[in-house]
Amino acid sequence: MPLLDALFGSPLVDAVFSDESRLGRMLDFEAALARAEARCGVIPGAAAEVIAGKCKPELLDAAALAQSTKLSGNPAIPMVKQLTALVAKQDQYAARFVHWGATSQDVNDTGLVLQIREAWGIMESDLSAFCATLAVMAQQYRSTVILGRTLMQHAQPTTFGAKVAAWLDAMHRHRVRFRKIGNRVFVLQFGGAVGTLAALKEKGLDVSEVLAQELKLELPDIPWHTQRDRLVEVATTLGLCAGTLGKIARDISVHMQPEIAELFEPAGGGRGGSSSMPHKRNPVSAARILAAAIRVPGLVSTMLTAMVQEDERGLGNWHAEWETLPEIVRLTAGALHEMKEVMPRLEVDVNNMRSNLDQTHGLVFAEAVSMALAESMGKSGAHGVVEAASQRVRTTGKTLSEELQQDPSVKQVLSAEVLNQLFIPERYLGSAEAFVDRVIASSQQL
Amino acid sequence: MPLLDALFGSPLVDAVFSDESRLGRMLDFEAALARAEARCGVIPGAAAEVIAGKCKPELLDAAALAQSTKLSGNPAIPMVKQLTALVAKQDQYAARFVHWGATSQDVNDTGLVLQIREAWGIMESDLSAFCATLAVMAQQYRSTVILGRTLMQHAQPTTFGAKVAAWLDAMHRHRVRFRKIGNRVFVLQFGGAVGTLAALKEKGLDVSEVLAQELKLELPDIPWHTQRDRLVEVATTLGLCAGTLGKIARDISVHMQPEIAELFEPAGGGRGGSSSMPHKRNPVSAARILAAAIRVPGLVSTMLTAMVQEDERGLGNWHAEWETLPEIVRLTAGALHEMKEVMPRLEVDVNNMRSNLDQTHGLVFAEAVSMALAESMGKSGAHGVVEAASQRVRTTGKTLSEELQQDPSVKQVLSAEVLNQLFIPERYLGSAEAFVDRVIASSQQL
Amino acid sequence: MPLLDALFGSPLVDAVFSDESRLGRMLDFEAALARAEARCGVIPGAAAEVIAGKCKPELLDAAALAQSTKLSGNPAIPMVKQLTALVAKQDQYAARFVHWGATSQDVNDTGLVLQIREAWGIMESDLSAFCATLAVMAQQYRSTVILGRTLMQHAQPTTFGAKVAAWLDAMHRHRVRFRKIGNRVFVLQFGGAVGTLAALKEKGLDVSEVLAQELKLELPDIPWHTQRDRLVEVATTLGLCAGTLGKIARDISVHMQPEIAELFEPAGGGRGGSSSMPHKRNPVSAARILAAAIRVPGLVSTMLTAMVQEDERGLGNWHAEWETLPEIVRLTAGALHEMKEVMPRLEVDVNNMRSNLDQTHGLVFAEAVSMALAESMGKSGAHGVVEAASQRVRTTGKTLSEELQQDPSVKQVLSAEVLNQLFIPERYLGSAEAFVDRVIASSQQL
Amino acid sequence: MPLLDALFGSPLVDAVFSDESRLGRMLDFEAALARAEARCGVIPGAAAEVIAGKCKPELLDAAALAQSTKLSGNPAIPMVKQLTALVAKQDQYAARFVHWGATSQDVNDTGLVLQIREAWGIMESDLSAFCATLAVMAQQYRSTVILGRTLMQHAQPTTFGAKVAAWLDAMHRHRVRFRKIGNRVFVLQFGGAVGTLAALKEKGLDVSEVLAQELKLELPDIPWHTQRDRLVEVATTLGLCAGTLGKIARDISVHMQPEIAELFEPAGGGRGGSSSMPHKRNPVSAARILAAAIRVPGLVSTMLTAMVQEDERGLGNWHAEWETLPEIVRLTAGALHEMKEVMPRLEVDVNNMRSNLDQTHGLVFAEAVSMALAESMGKSGAHGVVEAASQRVRTTGKTLSEELQQDPSVKQVLSAEVLNQLFIPERYLGSAEAFVDRVIASSQQL
Repeated sequence: MPLLDALFGSPLVDAVFSDESRLGRMLDFEAALARAEARCGVIPGAAAEVIAGKCKPELLDAAALAQSTKLSGNPAIPMVKQLTALVAKQDQYAARFVHWGATSQDVNDTGLVLQIREAWGIMESDLSAFCATLAVMAQQYRSTVILGRTLMQHAQPTTFGAKVAAWLDAMHRHRVRFRKIGNRVFVLQFGGAVGTLAALKEKGLDVSEVLAQELKLELPDIPWHTQRDRLVEVATTLGLCAGTLGKIARDISVHMQPEIAELFEPAGGGRGGSSSMPHKRNPVSAARILAAAIRVPGLVSTMLTAMVQEDERGLGNWHAEWETLPEIVRLTAGALHEMKEVMPRLEVDVNNMRSNLDQTHGLVFAEAVSMALAESMGKSGAHGVVEAASQRVRTTGKTLSEELQQDPSVKQVLSAEVLNQLFIPERYLGSAEAFVDRVIASSQQL
Repeated sequence: MPLLDALFGSPLVDAVFSDESRLGRMLDFEAALARAEARCGVIPGAAAEVIAGKCKPELLDAAALAQSTKLSGNPAIPMVKQLTALVAKQDQYAARFVHWGATSQDVNDTGLVLQIREAWGIMESDLSAFCATLAVMAQQYRSTVILGRTLMQHAQPTTFGAKVAAWLDAMHRHRVRFRKIGNRVFVLQFGGAVGTLAALKEKGLDVSEVLAQELKLELPDIPWHTQRDRLVEVATTLGLCAGTLGKIARDISVHMQPEIAELFEPAGGGRGGSSSMPHKRNPVSAARILAAAIRVPGLVSTMLTAMVQEDERGLGNWHAEWETLPEIVRLTAGALHEMKEVMPRLEVDVNNMRSNLDQTHGLVFAEAVSMALAESMGKSGAHGVVEAASQRVRTTGKTLSEELQQDPSVKQVLSAEVLNQLFIPERYLGSAEAFVDRVIASSQQL
Repeated sequence: MPLLDALFGSPLVDAVFSDESRLGRMLDFEAALARAEARCGVIPGAAAEVIAGKCKPELLDAAALAQSTKLSGNPAIPMVKQLTALVAKQDQYAARFVHWGATSQDVNDTGLVLQIREAWGIMESDLSAFCATLAVMAQQYRSTVILGRTLMQHAQPTTFGAKVAAWLDAMHRHRVRFRKIGNRVFVLQFGGAVGTLAALKEKGLDVSEVLAQELKLELPDIPWHTQRDRLVEVATTLGLCAGTLGKIARDISVHMQPEIAELFEPAGGGRGGSSSMPHKRNPVSAARILAAAIRVPGLVSTMLTAMVQEDERGLGNWHAEWETLPEIVRLTAGALHEMKEVMPRLEVDVNNMRSNLDQTHGLVFAEAVSMALAESMGKSGAHGVVEAASQRVRTTGKTLSEELQQDPSVKQVLSAEVLNQLFIPERYLGSAEAFVDRVIASSQQL
Repeated sequence: MPLLDALFGSPLVDAVFSDESRLGRMLDFEAALARAEARCGVIPGAAAEVIAGKCKPELLDAAALAQSTKLSGNPAIPMVKQLTALVAKQDQYAARFVHWGATSQDVNDTGLVLQIREAWGIMESDLSAFCATLAVMAQQYRSTVILGRTLMQHAQPTTFGAKVAAWLDAMHRHRVRFRKIGNRVFVLQFGGAVGTLAALKEKGLDVSEVLAQELKLELPDIPWHTQRDRLVEVATTLGLCAGTLGKIARDISVHMQPEIAELFEPAGGGRGGSSSMPHKRNPVSAARILAAAIRVPGLVSTMLTAMVQEDERGLGNWHAEWETLPEIVRLTAGALHEMKEVMPRLEVDVNNMRSNLDQTHGLVFAEAVSMALAESMGKSGAHGVVEAASQRVRTTGKTLSEELQQDPSVKQVLSAEVLNQLFIPERYLGSAEAFVDRVIASSQQL
């Protein structure tokens, strides 16, 4: 495994996209094709058995394959040649029926669909575990007050549970998207040279149906050699997921800044050290996940660009997908896996959450006071009074409450007691906790 | 309308994204908010009526708005100020309740969602008309033989109906995607400063529910200020659609090359001329649609990149969406509209389709012959014989059938009569027509 | 000016890309072409004068142009038609010679090059002013201690001047790039229908030369209708510049977080307020500039993708450039202008810079101590001792100096006095000031 | 070498980006650092010798490195640890001075710069060979008539030499860009933890200077840990080059369509076959090169996006570069190498070039005739007459010359003899040959 692949990928999904696994799924297609054609009476049953018996990646000569792939421009062509030779060694007659009626793209695409399905299973399991963790955390911190931030500035109190619930809300939608995409994407590719299955004469549809069954894939209405929207939807779905993971990682890294110090990635065991600075505790998981969130969008745009494929087989655009889509899967799966691993071990410093809030001199209750004053002064007048007092706070070092109590126009309408009540964070959480409950409830259903 | 906007957009959808319409939808939010808050007893009913009465874009000073937008960094802030001033002119007291409890992003986002919904309606109607046209064409040309092409080379016969059906198959999936996305995307944004609706105290959820009803939007479980996956899914869904439209345009342009001359965009009336070459008939619709297919992917990657939004309101990344998403909608809607207009008037030259096929010297039946020979020679042996004969065709100018008839190894296993049958395109269409039927049937259901 | 265009653009450069200016530069080409052809004896001098006299954008019917652009797929074609009609009204004979020997793309491309040159002048002036500001600041804060941050964690002291110098270093390279690109990019496009200037017979090169002189453009070796690398290099050069501007904006926004509070965008006059939170002071300039840095990369990728243009005029890919390149110029020019305006008014809080450093309990001198101990303990041993002490600091609340003084292995090799010296930031700035001087010196030369 | 890497890369450049080579260049940095520090009296000369002696990639444990890279988030940290252990085995004291004063990013970045310089050498050599081939071809086909095509339609005659010269013109600019970029890009990265070289006290600049000499790199004015414009300019320069290569590949693939048949990629030896169609001769090199041209733009946008790196070391954005930039180099180098190999073996069918021109019924001389008639009729009148005649040609099957000779308004002003002269392609090449000469001449200078 190359040095950096290990850093950004996820072990299980990386394995799905190894060359051995790629060839394995292509050979699964060839084996299933032979069986399906035998079941439909297109090729002899005995031949199918011999062929299927040779469909094992370890029997192929990988180095020779790489060499021939360069010449033929396509890994399926030399793979079929090697397979044919293997079969021929055992049974010359059976060798005639290898890859019968199929074209390279049938093998490549169906193999890829099988790989994606495998990766999907792993990712759905990570998604499910991650959402479960988030649901527990949202509940645990449902009422834990934290300073909300907008445009990287202090805004108003919210709860840490509400922040987590917002993460969960998005991640749950990704679970739904993953689930729903299955039927559209896990479909057979089988069309022969130009999508007519002409070589199978009148048996094309029958073989297709059985082949789809063999591989447990959906049967599409028509082969989709140059209609790539299904595969590209895999890419866009992953792109959306990577974006949300990046958002969560960014939040963690903002709150892990030493001056804020509310959240911490787990440390220890060589994790997040620095080669020059012994005191460092780096957010290395956030770095990895953010890197994925930065890299995936450009790769998705490549997939979208490559959709413009000519006639019955694209020139260059199809080829542009080959490394790009697996890379998108690997990066997103890696980011998801990392996040799923880190989240349960995230250190949450609720004391710092509170003390950061306390150190704002009450400025973050500006809206609260403004709304209270608005009832008598009007929204615009109140906004002006509070804005002015807020600016004084910055220079005087007093609290907003103190500044306002000295303003006669405020005194007139709000008693000190009522005013002070407005500066209690727990009283200014609005529907935060209700939102948390709604999200947790929805996240139980898929 | 700027010069080039007209070229790439679609009139109806462009109107949805005009500044006037943008402000209109933002004001719809403010009006509905006032009404909802009145219904929930949060603000006086009389105030709500006055506010709603002023929520008309034509009452605003657009030039002043643009100026203040630059200062405040946000069109909602000066819009609310102007609206408040308008209300105050009529009723000072009512002015206190404008935008009560909401934040700028609530207005911006919900306004955008309303614009997208409007555009969606227009695009769904274009999609529906376009799919209907394709279904008619797929049926009409169901058995019309055309040369299939792979990697921009001759491959094998298929039918023009099958090509159209493959287009329809993808476009129909886009219809399904458009339909399904609705529930996830057409949702209210309403959270106040940090997504807690704190300013509405315990009434936040009630107002939200009524507000959603007023605007006929779904009520989300939690505000989604920095969870942008819904909006970005709009972008990716459109990106997929633009990709397919580009694929169809590329096919048209390939087949409109004078040497192929099988398909033609409609001409006449100043369409597709050249400033220097009087004989030109340019595929201007294809140019426009391909331009959209090239432009949209980069814009989608921007939307994905911008998902990494900090805490409760993103800095810069949120702002990066503002012109990008409307541009994606406009370009895709423009390409779709153009395609829908052109397709029914596409000139289809079935004679050229046939004669192009005839001029291949039978080479495109190489697979057919190869499969026939394979039954006795084996697939690999047959492939070799036919490949060699194919190469001779290129130099001798004879047909593949003639070359094969001179090969003793072929003569041995296939009579001239049987061999000639293999070169009849209608006999080598496999399941093409069955695929057409399946696609048309599915396209009737949504 | 549309609402959001004003927000993200720069007034001067936006004007360069208005439709009127676009038509103006296209008409400049037509006027210069007529004059050049007259000077070369290709068309009558009198005709050239009449034509040149009509080459004014205000004489054209803009609405009719937009309409015909949609039909012809190209703004040059209807523009030439309107111009011809205008000339004909005054002089039927002269009208014969409008646009003589040119093709649409000649006008479009050369017009665009002229627009870019104009924008370049404005941007170079902004770049120059911005670099001058940075040089002053780098000098002013040359020795002002600030906490350096890596991976969003505390690292070691540096100076604010060194931070500014690093910004300047990159911005100065952009100045150099802007300067150097001129010769390669400000070239004439003139080739006629397929780049041969066939319509001018043997006079093609002569006319080209004079035309280039008229427009003060370089004469290329050969027309470059489908060799777009020059224009795309404009895009990539701007992309690099937008990236650096984004980096500076990100730095400002990080240091403007209330807990850090070292840098502040200017406030007041309606700048950076919030519709709901009266206390807010938002980094609105950073938001705008970051938005540009997020948007430009996707647009650059579109330009790169669109380079694959067929034969002598691209289909769709050429068209994909039309709105994209101006958008890249506008966004980058807008971000640059904003940055240039903000930087001289940036509030720099040197006290907070110092106090943030003081509050790290000496942890940021971990490397310093580690290096000092390494002389006797070895780098690896010292790293371990300091790492352990750093972790104790986090729990005990003591300073790193205190913790180390209690470690016998440290006492053995470093006296308390020597140890304390290691915790003086001014003594741990290494070559920071020397680097500042080098950058300032280089920035004086272009 | 993974299956698909071999397909898209180039053997020599792929080797430069192998893990072994990556580690090798990082170790070159460590060795040179030790030597430089010894020369400056910072560390003992004997220690430097021991360290330099261990800086060999084959001494490291690659598997352990990959494992630790995942933990530390950075390959430099475990590499330094392993190196230190190796040195310590031989000389405990020397081990203290490994990586003295440097930070991980110094090693990573400088190592990367060394790899790029190596790749640059290989690519410049390929560029040079490719340009030489193009110059020969431009000369050889300087006057070979070919049909020019615009918007994928017939336009006018040009020469194949002019087409090749236009390719050469762009490729030569890329050579110039490659050459010029060197000074800006091949610079040392050396700044220590936050870019101050504090650990080296007053010796920072001295060591930097000697270190740069040791590695034959330029010394920058200031470390550039988060100023990535230099590296991103490598990406954009390659992006421009990949775009031109894609354009050439697209041209080849258009002209290799069987109906046009003017250019052919070399065949034979397993090249470009099909698994199902024995007659196929696929443009596999074009496919590979086009794939690179489609993939590189998205990767370049990632590099641009990643420029927004925080403070003194970026979080995630720096990491996003690690696999992306090498991938851009590999893909572009692979496409360039493929193109350089294919071009000298490209089959050029000059007979088909001529016969395709002859089969246009003279329509491509429409502009020629139009210009000739314009002298008496005016440009607009002539355009109309020729446009109408061109449309008749399409239905009557006659030539444009014949159609025009039957038009009385034409007869009046042009004799049949003069008219026929207008339809001789060699007489309508304008400055094509002169342009070829100019380009060839310029291409000799670098």
